[in-house]
Amino acid sequence: MTGSRDFDEWSPQGPVEELSEQSCWELLQRESFGRLAVSRENRPLIFPVDYYADGTDILFRTSAGTKLRDLVANEAVAFEVDLRSEAESWSILVSGTARVVTDTDEIARADRAPLPRWIPVAPYTYVKIAPGSVHGRRFVHTLFASTTPAAH
Amino acid sequence: MTGSRDFDEWSPQGPVEELSEQSCWELLQRESFGRLAVSRENRPLIFPVDYYADGTDILFRTSAGTKLRDLVANEAVAFEVDLRSEAESWSILVSGTARVVTDTDEIARADRAPLPRWIPVAPYTYVKIAPGSVHGRRFVHTLFASTTPAAH
Repeated sequence: MTGSRDFDEWSPQGPVEELSEQSCWELLQRESFGRLAVSRENRPLIFPVDYYADGTDILFRTSAGTKLRDLVANEAVAFEVDLRSEAESWSILVSGTARVVTDTDEIARADRAPLPRWIPVAPYTYVKIAPGSVHGRRFVHTLFASTTPAAH
Repeated sequence: MTGSRDFDEWSPQGPVEELSEQSCWELLQRESFGRLAVSRENRPLIFPVDYYADGTDILFRTSAGTKLRDLVANEAVAFEVDLRSEAESWSILVSGTARVVTDTDEIARADRAPLPRWIPVAPYTYVKIAPGSVHGRRFVHTLFASTTPAAH
């Protein structure tokens, strides 16, 4: 589906190109910083997280704070990764369910995942997001006034 | 409150510093790209947006797509802006309510806001988020293994 354009899907940022699921996973695997959204009593909350995507699910660490409490209270989550440049921006949205990793073998495997090696100053736990859907969109930016001189 | 540390608030990313509301607004005004989260049937969704913060509320454009439909269905929103560097990262979270700007004078003022001048290829509308709460956190990254040589 890469490269397909749905002309019903224009945005204030320019035309929108839907990315294939494979392209989405390639971008998710290339990056390592995203945002997790949870709902609590139908109000959304957003948390930035370092993550690792192995091509099947999304792994991240959390401490015993708000984020985890919300996950436990409502396991429906959204996870977003984006990149914005002068020329374009893209955004991948994963909708799925989150669960705390409790299996000993699975924790051992998570310990070997290339997550950032920040010193874990608090007790932490691993959370995995199993994706229900993965959508990606690319916005090509078209400026009102180009700074590129016209060709002669 | 800038610089205060709540030692109950450590994270897998390192110690967490709560930012004052003033610091939050300074960062919100310095940046122009964030993420909007909405809930639909208690499931969160995230959308990247170009925004303008005037120190009181958050302004952005949207087209007649999913985002706006969700806003109309449930005006409780979260808005997040973050920056991540080698040494630290920070994240501002605004929880508030969204409304479509319909007043003619207010639309005229919004037209003068320094939002990115992408060509608006689709009919668009302005949305304003009135903040209910604004929270900011800074994470100081502490690596397991420093690449800086020890002093002699």
